[in-house]
Amino acid sequence: MNEADFIARLRAIATDPAARGLADDAAVFEGLVLTHDMIVEGVHFLPDERPQDVAWKLVAVNLSDLAAKGAVPVGVLLGYSLAGDDAWDAAFADGLDIVLRRYGLPLLGGDTVGVPAGAPRSLGLTAIGRAPREGAPARGGVRPGDQLWVSGTIGNAGVGLAMRLGEVEANETCLAAYSRPQPQLTLGQALVPHVHAMMDVSDGLLIDAERMAAASGCEITLMIETVPLSAALLAVRPDVLDTRLAAASAGDDYQLLFAADPDQAAAIREIAAGLGVAVAPVGHAGVGEGIALVHRAQRVARPERLGFMH
Amino acid sequence: MNEADFIARLRAIATDPAARGLADDAAVFEGLVLTHDMIVEGVHFLPDERPQDVAWKLVAVNLSDLAAKGAVPVGVLLGYSLAGDDAWDAAFADGLDIVLRRYGLPLLGGDTVGVPAGAPRSLGLTAIGRAPREGAPARGGVRPGDQLWVSGTIGNAGVGLAMRLGEVEANETCLAAYSRPQPQLTLGQALVPHVHAMMDVSDGLLIDAERMAAASGCEITLMIETVPLSAALLAVRPDVLDTRLAAASAGDDYQLLFAADPDQAAAIREIAAGLGVAVAPVGHAGVGEGIALVHRAQRVARPERLGFMH
Repeated sequence: MNEADFIARLRAIATDPAARGLADDAAVFEGLVLTHDMIVEGVHFLPDERPQDVAWKLVAVNLSDLAAKGAVPVGVLLGYSLAGDDAWDAAFADGLDIVLRRYGLPLLGGDTVGVPAGAPRSLGLTAIGRAPREGAPARGGVRPGDQLWVSGTIGNAGVGLAMRLGEVEANETCLAAYSRPQPQLTLGQALVPHVHAMMDVSDGLLIDAERMAAASGCEITLMIETVPLSAALLAVRPDVLDTRLAAASAGDDYQLLFAADPDQAAAIREIAAGLGVAVAPVGHAGVGEGIALVHRAQRVARPERLGFMH
Repeated sequence: MNEADFIARLRAIATDPAARGLADDAAVFEGLVLTHDMIVEGVHFLPDERPQDVAWKLVAVNLSDLAAKGAVPVGVLLGYSLAGDDAWDAAFADGLDIVLRRYGLPLLGGDTVGVPAGAPRSLGLTAIGRAPREGAPARGGVRPGDQLWVSGTIGNAGVGLAMRLGEVEANETCLAAYSRPQPQLTLGQALVPHVHAMMDVSDGLLIDAERMAAASGCEITLMIETVPLSAALLAVRPDVLDTRLAAASAGDDYQLLFAADPDQAAAIREIAAGLGVAVAPVGHAGVGEGIALVHRAQRVARPERLGFMH
């Protein structure tokens, strides 16, 4: 039983409709949206990352799941590993305080456990949100003919990680995208009446689009030249196909990927402009399955790695 | 900042009334009771424990928190560490399926993460329950003059652990108490209208009673000779004061500790009899603070270790 088998086994257990087949960003239960994401030292964050940033990331990745369901966050429960480093724990608590204040979120409860010396920190957060009145959009609602959109820019966090690792000259925008992801809560809430499907881009645009296509039973075609890249990313990478494919499979973006009828385009642009958030159409859905990649009207082969698998 | 400081810091962050000062078994939020408890390999369970039993324990310890609030469980979210042992994962999934079916509980969501080879498994569960109409009893509601009660018997799991470690001749009752704790959900729900305060005994009767006294701002006196011990425990330990103090500070009991006006005694006994669960008065509350231990009318010194600290 490998990871995929294990998750398939959990899906077989999770038959309640509220679980959405464990194939959505969150569970939707009696008007609440519930998510639990973990981050593990050495896997989801670097051992030398600032503890304040780890706290930010732990909260932000969970809020991003709520954003994708258009939910209003109402509270969190923390699962914390004490690894015997008091200064680290104190800095984490400071960072937690900051990020919870930033989002006006109460810490409702949780658990703190000691872990053996040398064990990697494993941190969990349960975030609870109020579902939108119209219902929380699922991943699986894409219809053939829909336009696909993404918010913000893609790939900054991936380049930011490369900067953290010293592989490329650093700039603030990409470093901040990696260290302090900004969940698109307000945008997600405002888009609910206009979209057929929505999810957050956490593991990479390509792999997440493929998951959305699979959940929806349709094909998603992405126009790679339209994937929005930031000036900060283009300052350190040439604007070539490889850069675009790398950005679209890097992960940690915490932007929204959503599908809507083309007649919603003006409304979507207006909402985004009102919030000062960029949105860009990046493709469309059709009858079929999986993802198709097109760059300047040429079909492009899928890269071997579509995103972060964990 | 040691663990106590860290938790004090979290308490300073958790100012929302729903958090109950992080001093209760669970958060109570808009009619829901929410808890998140973690168990870590080598800390809360033995590396050679059956994965099915680990799954049982993970669910049971969280349901015990809901039981203490008189809540009806409605679903769980799982945080799971994949440590690269497929057979272990498969057996855990089997056990999870069994325990969730036993309690009729949907798996609503969660997260599965890979951990580096050799890292201890760190498993988290968020359990969600419906709060009782009368409100969820807090730990802090004990009033001077109240009787203190416990359900079931105390100390079986502690002896079961000693049996697992080969320190004492094994018997099924104590081993099962350690491996397959039984949260007192039905009893907890039925007791709500009759109690002033309730919590579960997870870390040891003495330490948990001390926490209840602290939360309530009163003193709790425990009559050590009345602490209910099972025949299975007394088959391997002599009925002396040391045995009783060891049982009362062993932890992992997952019984209920509750305080009620003495005029509720008949109602409480009737409820317990109707459910086939033993309950026993073990002390009383008075003006003061902390716990006082009395054995056969003699004041007894507090043992150095009141329970499991983690």
